Amino acid sequence: MYEVIFQFEDGQQVKISAQAGDNLLELARSANVAIDAPCSGNGSCGKCRVKLVSGEVNAMPTSHISPEDLADGWRLSCGCTICGDVTVLVPDIASAYQSRMKTADLSSGEEVAIFEKLMADVTAAGVDFSNDFTTVELHMAAPSLDDTMPDNERITWALEDALGVEHVEIPFDCMLHLAHRLREDNFHVFASGLRKGDTFRLMDVRAKEEPMCAVAIDIGTTTVSAVLMDLKTGKLLAKASSGNGQIRYGADVINRIIEQGKPGGRAKLQKAIVDETLNPILKALCRSAGVAKERILRMCVASNTTMNHLLLGVEADWVRMEPYIPSFFRWQGLKAADLRLHAHGDADVVLAPNIGSYVGGDITAGALASLLWDKDEFTLFIDLGTNGELVFGNRDFMMSCACSAGPAFEGGDISCGMRATDGAIEAITIDKDTMEPTLSIVGEPGQKVVGLCGSGIIDLISELYRCGIISAKGQFVREGKRVRRDEHGTGRYVLAFEDESATGREVSLNEVDIDSFIRAKGAIFSAIDTMLSSLDMDVSVLEHVLVAGGIGSGINMKNAVNIGMLPDIPLEKFSYIGNSSLAGAYAMALSTHAEEKTYELAANMTYLELSTNPGYMDNFVAACFIPHTNGSLFPSSRQEV
Amino acid sequence: MYEVIFQFEDGQQVKISAQAGDNLLELARSANVAIDAPCSGNGSCGKCRVKLVSGEVNAMPTSHISPEDLADGWRLSCGCTICGDVTVLVPDIASAYQSRMKTADLSSGEEVAIFEKLMADVTAAGVDFSNDFTTVELHMAAPSLDDTMPDNERITWALEDALGVEHVEIPFDCMLHLAHRLREDNFHVFASGLRKGDTFRLMDVRAKEEPMCAVAIDIGTTTVSAVLMDLKTGKLLAKASSGNGQIRYGADVINRIIEQGKPGGRAKLQKAIVDETLNPILKALCRSAGVAKERILRMCVASNTTMNHLLLGVEADWVRMEPYIPSFFRWQGLKAADLRLHAHGDADVVLAPNIGSYVGGDITAGALASLLWDKDEFTLFIDLGTNGELVFGNRDFMMSCACSAGPAFEGGDISCGMRATDGAIEAITIDKDTMEPTLSIVGEPGQKVVGLCGSGIIDLISELYRCGIISAKGQFVREGKRVRRDEHGTGRYVLAFEDESATGREVSLNEVDIDSFIRAKGAIFSAIDTMLSSLDMDVSVLEHVLVAGGIGSGINMKNAVNIGMLPDIPLEKFSYIGNSSLAGAYAMALSTHAEEKTYELAANMTYLELSTNPGYMDNFVAACFIPHTNGSLFPSSRQEV
Repeated sequence: MYEVIFQFEDGQQVKISAQAGDNLLELARSANVAIDAPCSGNGSCGKCRVKLVSGEVNAMPTSHISPEDLADGWRLSCGCTICGDVTVLVPDIASAYQSRMKTADLSSGEEVAIFEKLMADVTAAGVDFSNDFTTVELHMAAPSLDDTMPDNERITWALEDALGVEHVEIPFDCMLHLAHRLREDNFHVFASGLRKGDTFRLMDVRAKEEPMCAVAIDIGTTTVSAVLMDLKTGKLLAKASSGNGQIRYGADVINRIIEQGKPGGRAKLQKAIVDETLNPILKALCRSAGVAKERILRMCVASNTTMNHLLLGVEADWVRMEPYIPSFFRWQGLKAADLRLHAHGDADVVLAPNIGSYVGGDITAGALASLLWDKDEFTLFIDLGTNGELVFGNRDFMMSCACSAGPAFEGGDISCGMRATDGAIEAITIDKDTMEPTLSIVGEPGQKVVGLCGSGIIDLISELYRCGIISAKGQFVREGKRVRRDEHGTGRYVLAFEDESATGREVSLNEVDIDSFIRAKGAIFSAIDTMLSSLDMDVSVLEHVLVAGGIGSGINMKNAVNIGMLPDIPLEKFSYIGNSSLAGAYAMALSTHAEEKTYELAANMTYLELSTNPGYMDNFVAACFIPHTNGSLFPSSRQEV
Repeated sequence: MYEVIFQFEDGQQVKISAQAGDNLLELARSANVAIDAPCSGNGSCGKCRVKLVSGEVNAMPTSHISPEDLADGWRLSCGCTICGDVTVLVPDIASAYQSRMKTADLSSGEEVAIFEKLMADVTAAGVDFSNDFTTVELHMAAPSLDDTMPDNERITWALEDALGVEHVEIPFDCMLHLAHRLREDNFHVFASGLRKGDTFRLMDVRAKEEPMCAVAIDIGTTTVSAVLMDLKTGKLLAKASSGNGQIRYGADVINRIIEQGKPGGRAKLQKAIVDETLNPILKALCRSAGVAKERILRMCVASNTTMNHLLLGVEADWVRMEPYIPSFFRWQGLKAADLRLHAHGDADVVLAPNIGSYVGGDITAGALASLLWDKDEFTLFIDLGTNGELVFGNRDFMMSCACSAGPAFEGGDISCGMRATDGAIEAITIDKDTMEPTLSIVGEPGQKVVGLCGSGIIDLISELYRCGIISAKGQFVREGKRVRRDEHGTGRYVLAFEDESATGREVSLNEVDIDSFIRAKGAIFSAIDTMLSSLDMDVSVLEHVLVAGGIGSGINMKNAVNIGMLPDIPLEKFSYIGNSSLAGAYAMALSTHAEEKTYELAANMTYLELSTNPGYMDNFVAACFIPHTNGSLFPSSRQEV
C-alpha cells in the first residue's frame, strides 16, 4: 500500500491509501477530491492536470502536456497510475469548472421580480396558480384516563370535524413526529396538508403557524439551480445554485451514461446528484429561508432525460442506444423519501415530463415558461445548456428537436473554457488594427482572468472573424503578438499571458477549440434549419426567438448571428429569457394546473429525430463555417466583415 | 484515550478506544459487543458480568458480585468506568439471554403442518384466504425507431390489455429495475402485482415466473420469529427466529422506553430491531427459500404496542406515562421502504392493531389465531410473553387486559434464568425424600446445564413446594446438600454445582428469584380473577384456557395450577397453542379478509385497565403466595401437598 497525498493551493491536504496500478483520477474521486474531467477520464479533454510535488507516477504520454510542463511535473491525472508514495498539487483551476454553492441575495428584489412576472404571465395565459394545500388550526382535548384515544385517531377526528372531510391520511414522516408535536402546546396545533376531494393528507403538525413551502429544481448537466417559495403565495423565499456533482464523471450526458453503466455506477451518480448536490442546495435553501425541511411539501424537478434517469437511479443505457428508449417519459407518484431528499419525505416530487431521449423535462418545463403555447406568432425557443434543444411553434402546434451541440456553450470541451463564474471572460471586442482585445470579466473589479465562458467564446470568434484574424474555417490567417502557434503549427489567440492570468497559465483559444465551437454552433443552426425545412418553412417565418439556458445573459445576439449560430433576422426578435427550465419547474411546483398543462404540452409536442433525418447531416456540414457555407443566409454577417 | 479490549471465550477480540470515565457497558454497546443487561444497566439484574484479564476499572460496589468473585476479577460492566487500558473477558453466558439466528428445518413437515392447520381452521371459521395478487405473462413488441414508447408506457399498455384494467401504477422500487428486466428476455416477462378494482399496481417484473411471497413477523420483547410463505397458497417456505437485538437496551418494555427517550435513543432502538434483527432474519428467510427480496410483496408484523412504536421509530414515552396514550392503535399505509426492510420497498407492512398501551398487536393477532371469536363457550386466551396479556370471551364479546408480569416467564429477572434454548432446564422433578432433582435439559444428549427457562422455573417452584422445601411464601424451610444460604442468609436450591454446569458457575434458584416469580404468577392469576369478577363471573365458567407465548411447549399445566398461576380447573381444558401472535400475523399477511377481521376484533375488544382497577391490587397481594392466600381456590394443589 502506498500513500497518495492531494495537496491544494491553500495548503490543505487529503491523504488516501493506494495500491500499485491504481488510477490517480479514480483515487481523487474516491477521496472526494474535485478534479474536473469533462471527458470522463479518457484523456481527451486535458483538464485534469495535477503537478507532482514529491514522488513519481506512471504517466501515459499525452499531447495535452507540453515537454516543458512535463519537466515541471505536470501530469494528466486520468493517465497516471500509482507506483509509490506520491504527493500531487491539485491546482484550483482543476476544479474551476465545478462551481461552489451559491445562494442568491433576494434583497434587491430583482430575482423575486423575475418569478413574480412569470407567475403573472402564466396566470394571464390561463393557468390557475391555486392549490389544495391547507393549514388549519386545531384545539383538541388533551387525553385522560377516560379519553384514551391514540394520537392519530385524535387528530383525525379533529381534522374531519374542522375540514368536513371523510378521510384523513397520515403518512409515515408525519406520524414520526406526531406525539411530540401534539404535546408541545397541549394539543393545540397548526396542521398542514393536502386536501383531495373528501380526503385530507396530513403532512406536518406544528405548535406555531409556519409557511408551507415548495421547491423547484433545474438539474442541468453542468449546473443545478433551485428556488424555495411559499406554496400559497408563490413568493420567493430563497434561491441557490451549484455545479452538478456528477461533473467529475463526465461533462456531457454520454460520458455519464457510460459511467452509470459500470458496476456501482448508478448508485455513484445518484449519490453525486442527491447527496452531494441537491441535499446541500436544499439545506442552503432551508437555512436561508429559515424553514424546516418538513415544511417543503411539494417539489418539482426539471431536467433532461438522462439527468432525470440518473437522479432516480434507473438504467440510462437505453437512452443513448438505438432506438433510444428511456425508462419513462412521465413518472408520477414519486416522493422525496424515495430519493432521500432533504424535504418532507412524503412531498410529491413532480418531474417535468420528457418527450424523448434527448428532449427532456427541462425543455417541456421551459416550453411552459416560454409561453410559446399561448402565442399566435411562430416562435422559436432555444435552450443552450450542455446540449442544444429547440421547440418551434405557436398555440396551434409545437415541434421539438435536440442537437448534440455538446458542452461548448458552457465552456466545456474548450481548453480554457469555464462556466460564467468569477474570472470568466464574458464579453470581448478586438481592435482590428492592433489585434488587442478588450475584455469584460465576471467578478469584482480587478478580478484576473481564469478562462472563457460561452458568451465570451461567441464574442471572441465573432471578433476574430470580423478582424480577419481567422478564416471562415476557423484557422488563423494573421500573425501578431497574440497569435501563437505550438510545435505542431496549431494556432491560438492569447487573451491573457501567463503573468496576466489568475492561474499563471496562459488563457487562449486555439484552432481545436474554435473547431469544437464551430461544430457546436453549426449543430444549433442546422437543427433550426432542418426543423423549419421539415415544415416547408425558413427563418423568415420567425417572429420571436427566445434563447434560454446556461450561456448566460451576457450573450451578444448580434455576434451569435455573425458567427452563424442564430438565424440572421432582425435583432429585436431575439430575447434572452434566462433559466426557463427553473421557471417552468417553479410554476409546476406551485400549481397542479401548471403541472397538467406541461403534460398536455409534452403530449402535443412532435419530436423530430435529427440523427436519422437525411437532410440534417448535410445542413450540419454546411453550417460548420463562419458564418455558413451559404453566405447568403447571413447577409448582415457579410456586411460586418 | 485508553484502549479497551473485549475478549471472548473463543479467543476473538474487539478493541475500542475510550476516555477516562466511559461506562464499560456503554462501550460494549457502541462496539456491538453483546452483553445482556435486562435491567438496562441500572445494576439491578446482575447479568452483565465480565472478568478482568488485565488492567483495572473503577467499579461500583454491588451485591451481585461475591467477595471471592470480585477477587477473581469479576465485575458488573454496567457499574464500571474506564481508568486505563483494560482487557475484559466477556463470558458466553453474558449473552446467553440473546439468542442467535435460527432457521427452522421444514423438512419434517411439523412446522408446515402447524400453519396448514391454522389456515384450515381460520378458513373454517369463515375467513377468506384469497388475495388480489396476480402474476401475468406478457409478450410485448420490442421497441424500434418507429415505436419509441418508453418502457413504463409499454408495459402499462400491455397490462391494461392483458388484465382489462384501466390504470396501472408502477411504484419506485419496480421502476428502478424495469428497463433491465424488460430486456432480459426481449420484452417477454412475468409481471406480478396487486389488482385493486380497475387498477393494477405492478410490483415486480421477471423474465421467469417466480413465486410471490409474504412474510409474517412476531416481534416479541425477547424473541423475534418470522415465516416466509407463498402468497397465493400460504405454503410455508422458510422460518427463522432470533433474539430481539434491543435486549441489550433492557429486558422489558419499560427499560426500552426509557432508553428510546434518551438523545438518539429512538434511532438506536430502531436500528437494533430493523438492521440488527429483522433484516438478518429476512435475509435468512430469502436465502433459505431461494427467493429475491423483491418477491416479498406483503408483510404483517404482530407486536406489542411498545415494540411497534420502537419499530417505527415514533416516540414511545407516552405509552408508559399516564394516561398511557400511544401514537396509534392502527396504522395503515406503511411500506417496507419506510422501515428499510429487506423486502420489496413497496410491500405493504400490515401492523396487527393495538387496543391499548399494554394490549398490542401481538394480542389482537393472537386472538385472531386463537379462534376465540368463533367459539360459543367462554374461553380464556393467555399470552405469556415478556409480559402477560389475557383475552376472555366468546363469539359474543371479548375483554382484554394486561398485567406487569415482567420477563420471568422467559427467564428474565431470574439470576440463572434464560430462554428455552440449549442448556436450559425445561422440566424438573424432585425426590421428596432425598431432595435430589431430575432435570430435563434442552439440547443434544449430554448437554450441560446453563440455566433455567420459564417452564423449568414453574416446575421447580411447584416441586420445591410439594416437597415442603419452600414455604407458601417461597422461603426455604428444609435444609440439605442442595439448599444453600449466602452470607445474608438468603436461601437457594442448587440445580447444578459449579463443576456440573456448562459455565463453571452454579445454577440455582434463590429466594429473590422465587419472590420475583411468585409476583409474576400472582400478576397473571389476579388478572384472571379481576377480569372475571368484573363480569360477575369466576373461573368455573371457563371452558377453554389457551396458553400461548414464549414460555414454550414444555409448560406443565398441572404444576402451573399447583403454584397458583393458572386457575384450578380440569386439566383437559388447558391447551398450549404456541406462538399465536406469529400465527395471527401469518393469516393477516396472506389475507386482507383476515386483516379486516383483526381490525374488527380489536374494535370489539373491551380493554380493562388493571392499574387503575381498585380490586386488582388486593387480588394481586392475595395471589402472591403458593398457591394463593385463599387456598380454597386451589383444592387440587392442597391435595398434592
